Amino acid sequence: MLKVSDRAILMPESPIRKLAPVAQKAENSGIHIHYLNIGQPDISSPKKAMDSIRNHNIETLSYAPSDGFKSYREKLSQYYFNQNIHLSPEDIIVTAGGSEALAFAISCACDPGDEVIIPEPYYANYLGFGVATGVNVIPLPCSINQEFALPSSDIISSLVTTNTKAIVLCNPGNPTGRLYNDQELEQIRSIALNHDLYVISDEVYREFTYDGKKHTSILTLKGLGQHGILIDSVSKRYSLCGARIGLIASKNKNIMAAAMKFAQARLSPPTLAQIVSEAAIDTDDSYFTEVKNEYENRRNFMVDRLNRISGVKCPKPSGAFYCIAELPIDDSNDFCQWILKEFNHKGETIMMAPGNGFYSDPKLGLNQVRLAYVLDIDHLDRAINCLEIGLQQYESK
Amino acid sequence: MLKVSDRAILMPESPIRKLAPVAQKAENSGIHIHYLNIGQPDISSPKKAMDSIRNHNIETLSYAPSDGFKSYREKLSQYYFNQNIHLSPEDIIVTAGGSEALAFAISCACDPGDEVIIPEPYYANYLGFGVATGVNVIPLPCSINQEFALPSSDIISSLVTTNTKAIVLCNPGNPTGRLYNDQELEQIRSIALNHDLYVISDEVYREFTYDGKKHTSILTLKGLGQHGILIDSVSKRYSLCGARIGLIASKNKNIMAAAMKFAQARLSPPTLAQIVSEAAIDTDDSYFTEVKNEYENRRNFMVDRLNRISGVKCPKPSGAFYCIAELPIDDSNDFCQWILKEFNHKGETIMMAPGNGFYSDPKLGLNQVRLAYVLDIDHLDRAINCLEIGLQQYESK
Repeated sequence: MLKVSDRAILMPESPIRKLAPVAQKAENSGIHIHYLNIGQPDISSPKKAMDSIRNHNIETLSYAPSDGFKSYREKLSQYYFNQNIHLSPEDIIVTAGGSEALAFAISCACDPGDEVIIPEPYYANYLGFGVATGVNVIPLPCSINQEFALPSSDIISSLVTTNTKAIVLCNPGNPTGRLYNDQELEQIRSIALNHDLYVISDEVYREFTYDGKKHTSILTLKGLGQHGILIDSVSKRYSLCGARIGLIASKNKNIMAAAMKFAQARLSPPTLAQIVSEAAIDTDDSYFTEVKNEYENRRNFMVDRLNRISGVKCPKPSGAFYCIAELPIDDSNDFCQWILKEFNHKGETIMMAPGNGFYSDPKLGLNQVRLAYVLDIDHLDRAINCLEIGLQQYESK
Repeated sequence: MLKVSDRAILMPESPIRKLAPVAQKAENSGIHIHYLNIGQPDISSPKKAMDSIRNHNIETLSYAPSDGFKSYREKLSQYYFNQNIHLSPEDIIVTAGGSEALAFAISCACDPGDEVIIPEPYYANYLGFGVATGVNVIPLPCSINQEFALPSSDIISSLVTTNTKAIVLCNPGNPTGRLYNDQELEQIRSIALNHDLYVISDEVYREFTYDGKKHTSILTLKGLGQHGILIDSVSKRYSLCGARIGLIASKNKNIMAAAMKFAQARLSPPTLAQIVSEAAIDTDDSYFTEVKNEYENRRNFMVDRLNRISGVKCPKPSGAFYCIAELPIDDSNDFCQWILKEFNHKGETIMMAPGNGFYSDPKLGLNQVRLAYVLDIDHLDRAINCLEIGLQQYESK
């Protein structure tokens, strides 16, 4: 009997995308859907970036080097230098999105049966990459009541076993929006050094921090030169999600030599999108000031609106463009499906990511949803109207 | 002590790319290198394809659906129909190159410890994807003296164990150029049915067959509807290696549902390159006629020249654009490095892929190299001159 592999069965469905067929059906019947389920911003990509391939004169679209174009890695090195992160072009391998960089990092640091500790709720695909590579994700529970702050060092250390190889951080965080403070990063630093663990740090939302707070990269922490593995991407920074250009970077030569073998096996990262991404680095600072202001306003608006709905709780995050909201419901899978399938308000509805998809145990997070404030305030307003009225109707069902 | 994973240590270096630093040094010192090591054709990409993103008006470069744009999958379905391969758009998931499609196929069909049988010599990265996914590659030895034909069914069947999950074919073959005939495909069909094995068929060189011979897709073989998994790519077909667009396709709904979970975990295939690839499907047949003629002439020229060198043997392949040549040497790693490092003829030299990189046992194929006829005849002539004179000097060392 032909079967699919056990790992394919274990592979989680994406909480962000699994309701796509239901949404498609609603759209086909004429409903306008506000897509807050996915981190696909409505923000324009920088004009300079998109212009870079207008009127190109490429005759043969050739392979790039496995580690990416040198000119691009040189510019990346300069970009990081401006962020006080010291990386030479040789410390960087360009990848097909942050996703591929994560797969490389986990594969180079861990063997099947090894463990990585990840603050929970976490970016759902971390679990997917764990299953794909046979690595066990050990959740480090963080609570919405503490605004998803890291628990004490004792609690974190208690999760370390002889199989633990790495801590995976997302900072600023998806799905929580948590921006780790100096004390939390010091905890991680000290645990990584004490137990000799890698810290795989996903910093794709680096620029998006609010309330005047600043992001600190794992690579700038003292003594973590050999432990730190940076995951990055142009997807959110320049609103270039469709480029599929990310990178893995580390001062650890063994890790980078290992990652290079994985990079060679898949030949090269996309050529056209690298040209676009290289041009994006020259984006004026004013772009970020504008975009950051826009996200901060959206966050303020959305979190405020959410907390004014009866029974809804939503901590105000300091980074990225997501928040987790607690709703007066028992099963967010059912609710998120219901609001797409059975509900509309003036011909509109909202798509959200069910909260339990961001937890290892699918019974956790069942009264939570993740919302991405990737639409403008007018649309956010209409989306939250749908949520508010939807909740009322759902409760009285 | 921080270590890299065992799988990273096991991960093979790419025989195609591992000499790149040596080649770079030679280039830096002013040597012109003929790159026959890699399947990067000098052939232009179809103008229609490259024009498709000239003067684009994309404002936000957004994620594509995880399985690729529907419009693209519809056109692919039509392309396959024209090749007598019946696939609906739902049977197709667009991937980041054939590489990602292979990784998905192996991950969905096999668990760590499972085995796949692959005719040897084989595309080196098959071994890489095996190591990355923990799947054991069981080589099926094919001999240069039999022009790399498949051995008897008894020999193939003798390799099947309870852990065998799939046979991986590359047809037409990289690195051998072998185009499997009806009898060989019937052997595979019958073994797959008898032992209930998947057949993962990499058919990226489908269009490139010579001497009037025709390619038969695994998906057209009777009874293999549930067993066949097709790997494809635009890289070679339209000389779009840098696009990084491939696909996995199957009529087996369980495999495709599993692959979709892996596809969702990495979000989406590149957007710009999908636009280019979709436009490429409208390429006129005259493009292929021309390109095929060009490759056939190159093959005739190169194989003829190689066989006229004393001590060199090179069977004439019927497909793809590679050949394996046996040289009068003991260690092709050493020779391929030497000819880049220590040799030049009129300021030129040749880069080849050492043969043992295409074998599971690195002691095999040591007197072989893989050559890709991806340059025009004038350059091939100069490249083979370098090889011929290089061999004389190397022998007399």
